[in-house]
Amino acid sequence: MNKRRVSKTIQVGGVSIGGDAPVRVQSMTKTDTRNVAATIDQIRVLEDCGCEIIRCAVPDMEAARALKEIKRGISIPLIADIHFDYQLALAALESGVDGLRLNPGNISDPDKVAAVVRAARERQVPIRIGVNFGSLPADLDPRLSVPEQMAEAALRHIRILENLDFDLIKVSLKAFDVPTTVQAYQEIASRIPYPLHIGITESGTPRQGMVRSAVGLGILLYEGLGDTLRVSLTGDPRDEVYAAYEILKSLRLRERGPSLVRCPSCGRTEVDLVSLATSVEKYLAGIQKSVKVAVMGCVVNGPGEARDADIGIACGKGKAVIFRKGQPVRTVDEADVLSELMREIEQF
Amino acid sequence: MNKRRVSKTIQVGGVSIGGDAPVRVQSMTKTDTRNVAATIDQIRVLEDCGCEIIRCAVPDMEAARALKEIKRGISIPLIADIHFDYQLALAALESGVDGLRLNPGNISDPDKVAAVVRAARERQVPIRIGVNFGSLPADLDPRLSVPEQMAEAALRHIRILENLDFDLIKVSLKAFDVPTTVQAYQEIASRIPYPLHIGITESGTPRQGMVRSAVGLGILLYEGLGDTLRVSLTGDPRDEVYAAYEILKSLRLRERGPSLVRCPSCGRTEVDLVSLATSVEKYLAGIQKSVKVAVMGCVVNGPGEARDADIGIACGKGKAVIFRKGQPVRTVDEADVLSELMREIEQF
Repeated sequence: MNKRRVSKTIQVGGVSIGGDAPVRVQSMTKTDTRNVAATIDQIRVLEDCGCEIIRCAVPDMEAARALKEIKRGISIPLIADIHFDYQLALAALESGVDGLRLNPGNISDPDKVAAVVRAARERQVPIRIGVNFGSLPADLDPRLSVPEQMAEAALRHIRILENLDFDLIKVSLKAFDVPTTVQAYQEIASRIPYPLHIGITESGTPRQGMVRSAVGLGILLYEGLGDTLRVSLTGDPRDEVYAAYEILKSLRLRERGPSLVRCPSCGRTEVDLVSLATSVEKYLAGIQKSVKVAVMGCVVNGPGEARDADIGIACGKGKAVIFRKGQPVRTVDEADVLSELMREIEQF
Repeated sequence: MNKRRVSKTIQVGGVSIGGDAPVRVQSMTKTDTRNVAATIDQIRVLEDCGCEIIRCAVPDMEAARALKEIKRGISIPLIADIHFDYQLALAALESGVDGLRLNPGNISDPDKVAAVVRAARERQVPIRIGVNFGSLPADLDPRLSVPEQMAEAALRHIRILENLDFDLIKVSLKAFDVPTTVQAYQEIASRIPYPLHIGITESGTPRQGMVRSAVGLGILLYEGLGDTLRVSLTGDPRDEVYAAYEILKSLRLRERGPSLVRCPSCGRTEVDLVSLATSVEKYLAGIQKSVKVAVMGCVVNGPGEARDADIGIACGKGKAVIFRKGQPVRTVDEADVLSELMREIEQF
């Protein structure tokens, strides 16, 4: 695994991004931003899931103004997602947002860009430049590869901000295609000092999106790229936060809650492993502890993986051995496995 | 993306693995192998999902003998998963299996190993050596890292086969931990010429398992490692095949069926994108064509991503533009979007 790329650190509200800060998990609301109550409700649910930064679409002035009240109802930093209209950006800043997602090159009048940047600087509010494969400018050098074009598009926006002496910048380069996305980030990584927001755009159904995002974001993080991430999924945004943590946990970049190792079960399994593991899973869903629990169904791989967990069981015929931090603690009857395991986890 | 590692090609029944062959998708039955009818039923379902090789656990002689009848009922190559007992391996070969998963070092008597290898060679049946982090031998050099130990454990088994002049070998090195697994495969990749079977073991709940496997297998494939894969998931093995193809498709290594690009929807969306995309998804689930369909909800990223698809729609207020291979074809009313899109896909 590559060492993490060194980037500047920026502050989005109380949350640092880049440098040595943990890779941050963010999401985007699916509600109508003008519906303040619904938006606050959704954000609070996401906060409980571990979402660290939230973004809202700002399609009009009413939405920009609603951000003020939304901000009062939530605990995590709020980012306004703006396109084209500089007045929405100014209004969002007025509303007290902690970050903007805005491509300055999409605002044609330099004075209007300068006004937004001035207001952002006064409030020390960072701006994320977000280039999407789906909306590249038409006048890029066609001899460049698509990833190079994406990086070039981002650099144009970045130069506009830098020329206004603004460096509270975060950059994303998203596409549906994983290799394109990875190459685009690699392309820009060495050319700018700013933190990277990583994501795969428009990833299809939740299941497909989870897999595609895990592949793409997994590769980027493994390559040392990425300071904050959003998993874009259609449907419930809680799934975005869940998947983000699973990706980060799988690479040991973040910890969150309990993790359950269980064998997929096969013809060797002599206990009802699926129902046992499902019961354990339900129990773990209710606790916050970062504990690694292993539920193994047979004697082939069971003891080894169970030993590696904080608490483990390796089931045999009618019996199971409970392990604690690598040490076998005792053998229990099949009927008592669940209660004994829960007791061990509680005591851990 | 790294160029794929060059490996020997082996044949598992009619399916080639390694070399220039496509990265193969395999799964493992969850049925009791002794229950021939249930096992055949499950394998047939998996064949329909695109599973190319199937493995069955062989816990006893009855299971080893059942493989003969199972083999007659299915169309894809069958691999017998054997532990410890060489007689089960011999019986499985008698039953006509196309591959063995067996670690020769687990059979203590060299004559018994030689008997199995002789029978496998006669039938030109390959053997997969599968090292799991959970069952490493106790006498490995403790100064080695865990991935080095895993590679070393595999090399011991490989040398036993090579000393018997047997080279129809495939190797896997699995662990729950993604970085460990990736390093283990990197460790062995340059030291052996054989194809690699990749996987992440015992990956927890189906959702967690899908994400972890996608991260781990995605990284390995991106690094150019992996000639066949199994996504180990608790529950329905169809999910294993689905996830395997999604991982391969995301890196453009395989194509299978239609793919749907849809935007995650946000506060900008002015049509009921979720229900539209869900309808399109249901329709696509019933077709086999490799067609890329884009359903986009707004004018920001919509037109670009829709243009990149074979068939795309970019929705605006009450209307949508249909694209065919990058060209806008016509504008249709919101009410007709679904039927018009389906017509385009049928004609594609």
